[in-house]
Amino acid sequence: MARVYNFSAGPGTLPVEVLETAQADLLDWHGTGMSVMEMSHRGDAFVSIAEKATADLRKLLDVPEGYSVLFLQGGAAGQFAGVPLNLMGDAGRADYIVTGNWGKKAVKEAGKYGDAQVAATGEADAFTRIPPRADWQLRDDAAYVHYTPNETIQGVEFPEVPDVGDTPLVADMSSSFLSQPVDVSKFGVIYAGAQKNAGPAGVTMVIVRDELMGRANAQTPMVLDYKQQADADSMLNTPPCFAWYMCGLTFEWILANGGVEGMAERNARKARKLYDFIDGSDFYRNPVAPEARSRMNVPFLLADDSLDKTFLAQAEEAGLSTLKGHRSVGGMRASIYNAMPEAGVDALIDFMRGFEKDNG
Amino acid sequence: MARVYNFSAGPGTLPVEVLETAQADLLDWHGTGMSVMEMSHRGDAFVSIAEKATADLRKLLDVPEGYSVLFLQGGAAGQFAGVPLNLMGDAGRADYIVTGNWGKKAVKEAGKYGDAQVAATGEADAFTRIPPRADWQLRDDAAYVHYTPNETIQGVEFPEVPDVGDTPLVADMSSSFLSQPVDVSKFGVIYAGAQKNAGPAGVTMVIVRDELMGRANAQTPMVLDYKQQADADSMLNTPPCFAWYMCGLTFEWILANGGVEGMAERNARKARKLYDFIDGSDFYRNPVAPEARSRMNVPFLLADDSLDKTFLAQAEEAGLSTLKGHRSVGGMRASIYNAMPEAGVDALIDFMRGFEKDNG
Repeated sequence: MARVYNFSAGPGTLPVEVLETAQADLLDWHGTGMSVMEMSHRGDAFVSIAEKATADLRKLLDVPEGYSVLFLQGGAAGQFAGVPLNLMGDAGRADYIVTGNWGKKAVKEAGKYGDAQVAATGEADAFTRIPPRADWQLRDDAAYVHYTPNETIQGVEFPEVPDVGDTPLVADMSSSFLSQPVDVSKFGVIYAGAQKNAGPAGVTMVIVRDELMGRANAQTPMVLDYKQQADADSMLNTPPCFAWYMCGLTFEWILANGGVEGMAERNARKARKLYDFIDGSDFYRNPVAPEARSRMNVPFLLADDSLDKTFLAQAEEAGLSTLKGHRSVGGMRASIYNAMPEAGVDALIDFMRGFEKDNG
Repeated sequence: MARVYNFSAGPGTLPVEVLETAQADLLDWHGTGMSVMEMSHRGDAFVSIAEKATADLRKLLDVPEGYSVLFLQGGAAGQFAGVPLNLMGDAGRADYIVTGNWGKKAVKEAGKYGDAQVAATGEADAFTRIPPRADWQLRDDAAYVHYTPNETIQGVEFPEVPDVGDTPLVADMSSSFLSQPVDVSKFGVIYAGAQKNAGPAGVTMVIVRDELMGRANAQTPMVLDYKQQADADSMLNTPPCFAWYMCGLTFEWILANGGVEGMAERNARKARKLYDFIDGSDFYRNPVAPEARSRMNVPFLLADDSLDKTFLAQAEEAGLSTLKGHRSVGGMRASIYNAMPEAGVDALIDFMRGFEKDNG
């Protein structure tokens, strides 16, 4: 077996140790005589898996009392509806900060349920920078302010959590979740699809301040209702058991590798190496303002885009997979999530250096 | 490794051959150097997996032209909202035939979105029989009639597809999906959580007549919108890739084992054996009317329920797992889905015979 370095933006690479554990246990989890995929979600075995994963996630992010941790289905896109359905309440207003494609989708979906306003957008700058905080048009009576800490497609990341006063802050943290410490107490809701840093696609984590629950729109599908799901320990209906289990294994791996602090340190080092290399070259470039560059997703363009196809084909041959950029940005994108080893970034830089030499 | 016979009602047992294939490919699917869990859902490898699974499902059920096959998240409970949101339209009315707990939940959820009426219910008979067709109070202007072909908790199954005239028929087929042939053309929508006969929890199949799409309520979350998902080949957002893949492996296993016709024959034989044994005993009994008995879920009661705990403990020791009945029915329940080998049913009957001898 030859594993490649997989730079996919998501679903993305998982720690090989996590996959090896899952493989070993696939037909018989801990002597139960069955796969995790075959277990009743109400049985002791799966409940122990779910509880351990939940406790480990709370530990990793130091989730305070007064917050619930949910494991739901439907992806972040499901939460684009779930957030307004649960939180808009009587005010019916919410403010969105748009710094890329995902924020655009989020505010569009929220518009189905109330007055969802774009309070600031980086679109005029092709999402290469974050609109200055002073320019945000926030409303005092908004039920929440929503933003996307890291935009996967544009590779734009907030360097810090914005201050929005007393209005609950909601974050689609899909692509930076668990990549660094975060002060959960600053948020009303954090949600994240697993398939970047936390596990496989098919499970979405929602961390919600308890006092915000219980005000859901009467038309909220029960599977998206935070209060009902919290009361049922995320088992209002059959949860995505295997994906939840895989997240649990990944949480254990993160804990064993320095926690989110360890991830942050390694992620910063990986990103710095790659950006430094790109910035030191006339052959490659990254269009994002330095202070807003993502540590997770690094888009880069060739000075001569007629070489894109050759670059991608040769990279694939060299075991560097899924480097194609999103069609709305073009060029290349290297997603370097937690599970991408530093050696993978080194190999990418070596390849890029060689490609420049051959084609520059 | 000692695999048990797992009688869980769901998530339920999977074919061991399917698990073995998944295990072998877990770190490197077909030489790609990555797990299915790590693949971009937009890449050639995963798209080929998704397309093959979809084509095999169409083949298994002989899905006619004019129907779309979707792989969504959220479970059947998500579809309890998805169906009315997509289909109720201007009429805003739907009729529900309730033959157990799941039908009750479905009509309750639909009531959030319009006038969802219980047109017939077996509740007065503790859901031990199906209300006679002549007594159903169907409305001519209902957007659809919803029923649950097999009720997992009560073990009640419709012996045939009911005739509801020109009104689109909608079925929550979760627990009998792929257990026998079905004439899809009789249905407007069929939906099914995978975790009984089709794969692991976390993916829900929806087969929908195309002419019913495109009339979704404006507040339908996009992830539940049939038309949008059909147009995007179920990839409006990241799908539950690994669960979809596991379903594909299970479809291949069904095809290799006689298709749904082969499943139906084996399932009928397994169920007959077990019901015959129960009916021939004064020690065990099944309360369901013989013509409405489920081939998938066989609840049974001991004449002396003080022995329930002993029965369950000794069964577990004998490698017969997860036989406890649902709390609303009590006693025991043996779920004998496609992947339960006939030898498992034989082992259960042997055990039951011995237990009766020791305790009768």
